Amino acid sequence: LDHHETDRVYALVEPLHPADIADLFELIEPDYRAELARAITDLLGSDVMAEMNDWVRDDLVEELDPDEVAELAEQMETDDAVALIEDLDAKDRAAVLAEMEPTERAAIESALAHPHESAGRLMSREFISVPEHWTVGELTDYLGRKSDLPTEFWEVFIVDERHHPVGTCALSWILRTPRNVALSDVMKRDQTLIPVTMDQEEVALRFQKYALISAAVVDPAGRLVGQITVDDVVHIIQEEAGEDALLLSGAGDGDINEPLPRTIRTRMLWLFVNLGTAILASSVVALFEGTIARLVTLAVLMPIVTGMGGNAATQTMTVTVRALATNQLTSSNTWRMIVREWWIASANGLGLGALMALGCQLVYHDWWLSFVLLLAMVLNSLNAGLSGVLIPIVLDRLRIDPAVTSTVFVTTMTDTFGFFFLGLAELFALH
Amino acid sequence: LDHHETDRVYALVEPLHPADIADLFELIEPDYRAELARAITDLLGSDVMAEMNDWVRDDLVEELDPDEVAELAEQMETDDAVALIEDLDAKDRAAVLAEMEPTERAAIESALAHPHESAGRLMSREFISVPEHWTVGELTDYLGRKSDLPTEFWEVFIVDERHHPVGTCALSWILRTPRNVALSDVMKRDQTLIPVTMDQEEVALRFQKYALISAAVVDPAGRLVGQITVDDVVHIIQEEAGEDALLLSGAGDGDINEPLPRTIRTRMLWLFVNLGTAILASSVVALFEGTIARLVTLAVLMPIVTGMGGNAATQTMTVTVRALATNQLTSSNTWRMIVREWWIASANGLGLGALMALGCQLVYHDWWLSFVLLLAMVLNSLNAGLSGVLIPIVLDRLRIDPAVTSTVFVTTMTDTFGFFFLGLAELFALH
Repeated sequence: LDHHETDRVYALVEPLHPADIADLFELIEPDYRAELARAITDLLGSDVMAEMNDWVRDDLVEELDPDEVAELAEQMETDDAVALIEDLDAKDRAAVLAEMEPTERAAIESALAHPHESAGRLMSREFISVPEHWTVGELTDYLGRKSDLPTEFWEVFIVDERHHPVGTCALSWILRTPRNVALSDVMKRDQTLIPVTMDQEEVALRFQKYALISAAVVDPAGRLVGQITVDDVVHIIQEEAGEDALLLSGAGDGDINEPLPRTIRTRMLWLFVNLGTAILASSVVALFEGTIARLVTLAVLMPIVTGMGGNAATQTMTVTVRALATNQLTSSNTWRMIVREWWIASANGLGLGALMALGCQLVYHDWWLSFVLLLAMVLNSLNAGLSGVLIPIVLDRLRIDPAVTSTVFVTTMTDTFGFFFLGLAELFALH
Repeated sequence: LDHHETDRVYALVEPLHPADIADLFELIEPDYRAELARAITDLLGSDVMAEMNDWVRDDLVEELDPDEVAELAEQMETDDAVALIEDLDAKDRAAVLAEMEPTERAAIESALAHPHESAGRLMSREFISVPEHWTVGELTDYLGRKSDLPTEFWEVFIVDERHHPVGTCALSWILRTPRNVALSDVMKRDQTLIPVTMDQEEVALRFQKYALISAAVVDPAGRLVGQITVDDVVHIIQEEAGEDALLLSGAGDGDINEPLPRTIRTRMLWLFVNLGTAILASSVVALFEGTIARLVTLAVLMPIVTGMGGNAATQTMTVTVRALATNQLTSSNTWRMIVREWWIASANGLGLGALMALGCQLVYHDWWLSFVLLLAMVLNSLNAGLSGVLIPIVLDRLRIDPAVTSTVFVTTMTDTFGFFFLGLAELFALH
């Protein structure tokens, strides 16, 4: 289709939703993206850019002039404009900001002053705040009169004279309440305030826990400075929750639109670190070379002990990392969780160890070997279960993201101990 | 604190948000839960129950009489009431339904008629729908007059005379528009409709993609039958995204409040299946027992080849499973993804294989052995990369959830081929 038939392409793309146009850019071959962009320039609005994958958008933005980017950014809400501009390098960013209207520029510059992935970056500066002495009627008149309202809002924030939020009022309550009632009588006083410095992951958890539609963002002095709405939080929830699987596997942010060299670098670094643990495991095997030479069967049984340990550890580790990420695991139930995993590891180690020992006995008719296999599997299962639960918890206490680092430590534990137990048990059996 | 000082407990719990009370139940020791419930009976409203973990709630509900459960369910919105009742066994469910008001019962029974995890179960039957010929003023008067409005709503649905949705109108637009304007002139015609049969995962993706706050649910005849609001979708997004990590690791739904025997059963089943792949791998090793007996070093190098393969496969598999789950990977870019993973696997296999071969040469001074190690690592890296991307894609095409089943197949591929390559290459080197 992209053989210069610009009009047909335009006609096909025009009826699509902005989010679908953004998807289209992600799905077509990277080489065609610039051509598609040229064919549908006037459909390529701020909505489309806001929905686009970061890497795909960066590619496109690099093809545009600073004044074109500035024009797009001015049409967007502050939070989307910040997302567009924050990924540019310092020079391009300055060029784009220089082309913008002073008020828009000031808003974006103040957002960029907040740390990456904080509530300050995420919030929109367009929101409705009114004094608490107003009545519902005054608010309704004000909304009808005001022309530069944010495109969409779901709650009105009520503030005191120091601009501190004192309550919120859902639009549905305003519509149901007679005009003469005071706002302070319908508003909900008990609201969830988000400090500008809060990490976006924590913001997402608050939205989810309290089922929020929008929330007031306050500066350190407690003044209302912005609002975060749930539609901006939804993809953070999705990303943060999906991120753990990718981080545990060492695939970085796992974005399939990321440039290839960058992906190779991320993944190779991880494999390189894990080669370290494999070398450690292999040097434990080297310790028992003599034993293996006498009984090659041990080399055959090795994958069973380490495989079972690795799988059991991954289960426990994943559950622990998820429970930490969702705040379900806190200091008050840590001990209960450890005891729980101890029981699971004992049951699985005994059950599957006994099964394998029986199988080993049937194949090799060697009671000692079967006993050694059972012992190795029970001990490695306990080792796997306890490493899987303790390592993420300890890393979390040390303020290291357990999703990023747990796997290496846990694999080291199960691999080296898996081999060590087998060798040790064999030495003990040879006596 | 729970030493029968009921009043103090009550005073401490009273100021908490319902979601925090629900958390409290999850965090305290299971034995104390019933006692806590008795101490704060009148705080234990429908909000608290709706926010509580499924397992913890089930425990509590079992302690209550059917009429108490029915009373709680009647206070809830239909979707939360359904969540409360659907987990009960058939007898208890019938007993609870019998105690409920006929209209509430009918609503819940019709929700239960929809399949588990479908939009029909998720939707709320309380929503605002008005005919398209109304003006903004008529709508405002209607909302002010109507007493049994849903507790919270964010959009009004506009329907034609056959009750088919024709547009939506955000409350903020209604508040900004003069009373005499017709609804058909302010409403958004282009809306995302959710069929009652749609799976909740798909619903969550729609909400996320189109940044929805609420959406109309339609029956197969296209009539408006309910609404889904974003606050109900937020935890589905979180669960579905986090679920992949847990499913890939074989930890089931990984809920730390799940009863222990059930968790042990789920995890043991997975480990049992994976023992099968370990036995397969170990039987490949057994094929080369003779070779290993002559050169025990091969047993030492084994963990390096299989470890690297396993880690590389996990990276690719996790990225592919996530890309499939988020609809980023579709038939149009499948081939690009496979080629991409082929390049990543080649680069990593050659880079790390060369490094290990060099190390092997320095330790063992054996050119043949180093060459064999390089060859094994390159081939196993390609095997890992291609299995990691192809297996989830094929499973997805066969409509099997790739998150649940990929790991077993991918592990089998990397383990057996890792050993097979090593043995094969060695045979070739011995000539």
